[in-house]
Amino acid sequence: MLTEIITIGDEILIGQVVDTNSAWMGQLLNRNGVKVHQITSVSDDPAHIIQALDLAKARVDIVLITGGLGPTKDDLTKKTLRDYFGMNWRIDDQVTEDVIKRFAAFGKVASEINLLQAQVPDGCRVIRNLNGTAPGMWFEQNGKIFVSMPGVPFEMMSMMEHGVLPLLREKLKLPFIYHKTLLTQGVGESVLAEKIEAWEDSLAALGIKLAYLPSTGMVRLRLSSSGQDEVAIKNNVHQKIAEVLPLIGQFIFGYDEDTLETVLGKLLLEQNATIATAESCTGGYLAHRITSIAGSSAYFQGSVISYANEVKTAQLGVPADLIAQHGAVSEEVVSVMAKNCREKFQTTYAIAISGIAGPDGGTEEKPVGTIFMAVANSTEIRTHKVQYGGNRERNIQYAALTALFLLRKVMLRLD
Amino acid sequence: MLTEIITIGDEILIGQVVDTNSAWMGQLLNRNGVKVHQITSVSDDPAHIIQALDLAKARVDIVLITGGLGPTKDDLTKKTLRDYFGMNWRIDDQVTEDVIKRFAAFGKVASEINLLQAQVPDGCRVIRNLNGTAPGMWFEQNGKIFVSMPGVPFEMMSMMEHGVLPLLREKLKLPFIYHKTLLTQGVGESVLAEKIEAWEDSLAALGIKLAYLPSTGMVRLRLSSSGQDEVAIKNNVHQKIAEVLPLIGQFIFGYDEDTLETVLGKLLLEQNATIATAESCTGGYLAHRITSIAGSSAYFQGSVISYANEVKTAQLGVPADLIAQHGAVSEEVVSVMAKNCREKFQTTYAIAISGIAGPDGGTEEKPVGTIFMAVANSTEIRTHKVQYGGNRERNIQYAALTALFLLRKVMLRLD
Repeated sequence: MLTEIITIGDEILIGQVVDTNSAWMGQLLNRNGVKVHQITSVSDDPAHIIQALDLAKARVDIVLITGGLGPTKDDLTKKTLRDYFGMNWRIDDQVTEDVIKRFAAFGKVASEINLLQAQVPDGCRVIRNLNGTAPGMWFEQNGKIFVSMPGVPFEMMSMMEHGVLPLLREKLKLPFIYHKTLLTQGVGESVLAEKIEAWEDSLAALGIKLAYLPSTGMVRLRLSSSGQDEVAIKNNVHQKIAEVLPLIGQFIFGYDEDTLETVLGKLLLEQNATIATAESCTGGYLAHRITSIAGSSAYFQGSVISYANEVKTAQLGVPADLIAQHGAVSEEVVSVMAKNCREKFQTTYAIAISGIAGPDGGTEEKPVGTIFMAVANSTEIRTHKVQYGGNRERNIQYAALTALFLLRKVMLRLD
Repeated sequence: MLTEIITIGDEILIGQVVDTNSAWMGQLLNRNGVKVHQITSVSDDPAHIIQALDLAKARVDIVLITGGLGPTKDDLTKKTLRDYFGMNWRIDDQVTEDVIKRFAAFGKVASEINLLQAQVPDGCRVIRNLNGTAPGMWFEQNGKIFVSMPGVPFEMMSMMEHGVLPLLREKLKLPFIYHKTLLTQGVGESVLAEKIEAWEDSLAALGIKLAYLPSTGMVRLRLSSSGQDEVAIKNNVHQKIAEVLPLIGQFIFGYDEDTLETVLGKLLLEQNATIATAESCTGGYLAHRITSIAGSSAYFQGSVISYANEVKTAQLGVPADLIAQHGAVSEEVVSVMAKNCREKFQTTYAIAISGIAGPDGGTEEKPVGTIFMAVANSTEIRTHKVQYGGNRERNIQYAALTALFLLRKVMLRLD
């Protein structure tokens, strides 16, 4: 079953908008066993849209279209599709009701223009829009499926998940597909591959595929399996995960959609623990990562961002002569920062970071990208030094991420 | 002159990678008067690539191809293009030299596989890669131009700017195009349009186009003009900008690629001033924005992130009974936070933020998205209240941005 995604909109062609919809759809479809063969972005022009539809239906079985719906686009896609399939207009009562209700929820009355959303080609099946007013439209012609959706990401996403995918599953009798992703950190792709070589070889016999997906500071391992027997498929995948844990368990910090911040947040709640940060070169980014999680106020107390050396001394009690002796970017200073931060905020743990984010400020001994970090609890201060490159943004991001991994090690008493 | 962008790579179709290259190229080309007619993403498959090339050359004059170069892709695109144009291999000495030098810079010797990068179709013109080893390739056939570039963004970007665009300019005798963008804040698109209506109407006579480009917390106004007489074009645009300043000057915080952080950084340096932040709901994000600018250590001293109320009291001297009386999210508390933060860090200015980022923690009186901010200097404490919605991430981002705008007003003594 091959799919083509067609995105409609001049804003994509002039680069005003990055097409994130297609990647999101590609991921969702791929996870569900539907292969995306091509992505085509065309202009707000009926002739161009029709050409794209003609070419797509010659190549693939399913054509998913986003964009060009709604009043500001003058419903270009809807009109073009109606003409393309030679249909008439009809009013869809469910859409009328949805539009009226949506406006009423905001204390408003839907205008005549708003109610035009309910006008759809009479041969299409309507896909309800749970996050907006423009409905999705499902067409079938000569065994090919065409679906038109709005371009607004969160409208399209909900429509794909709750409307389009279930229908595709039913129509195409898609097999059950199961994915489980292990999130690892602190180990490179090649070392990981070596450690699990024999295990990896054993996956094929069970019809399980393994993908290495590297991303910032981590490697994700995705196991995938598909077929008709849902219970057997899940059991096989879980069995294989149980087998790999003794080999690389210490590197696995989470599964699937977990992030390090959420995993650590849960861990802090479980331990009934609190945390504070003392940041120099990360300038608040570490605290920002921690507090980006809803509910983080249950464990995060606060931070001192000590960009200036005087602040390190005045607010974090780092002796001025310690800074003079070792430099602000040193294991000695970052250790005191962590220790005193923990005492100042009376938390279970404290993380401290001091480094040279760049692009300036490096020396021969401590070039740009030299960053020290420390995690303190009541019994130890664990330190770690990294040497990154010259990119300020990446240095800040990697340092915060690595410090969070260091926290995890201390919390779980890992080496 | 119409262009089609073809991106090659399964990783885009399965959604592992978001195609940001095309949007970047679309922007660059559009700014330079070359229209992108279509973007097509195809799989790592020679037959599919050839089909895309055939269709593209029937539609457009210029075909820009990214991806599928380099050893991991087994140089799929290079081989396909050689066959497509019926060429032989040749070795390009400049590429050989570039590859050897690039490895030597890292103290390494280029392997035979690395040196294969210099093998190119003998009828193409090589575009040097200043950021990698895979060269770009420029083909011409029946008046159509085809350019193949690597998919790695920073290799492609430098190649487009320094190699492909200058060549296109020369070959196509592109007119001179001039853009100047005014960055405004604190005023909506419709109010802005009203204020400058007469001025906007006067642009057409000089061949100047105006585009409204709204983005997070701001509206950008882009003036564009093109033609052969570079001096006259620039003068006209500058003249028109001089005319619009009396109308909306107080909303303009910068030009072109400026960001609020860089503009404020320059302003702080000019005033020989320093700054600190006291943050509750933004959790360090404001400090992160300020310190994302290289050289910010010249004016940024530090922050107290007072997530817990006890930290507001202990570290920022906010009386506990003030919090009890007005709530931590109040004008009274945020004022004291700003005042005491400024004194604590002995800075010229201090910014304080306290609010309910959500999704939980709202009340009827102060729903999620209620955020207070204050900016203190030696003579005044300016406060501002905003009421955003329920999205935590957006609340944090908007609050930091709005607080920076408040700082700008205080620094420039604007109302």
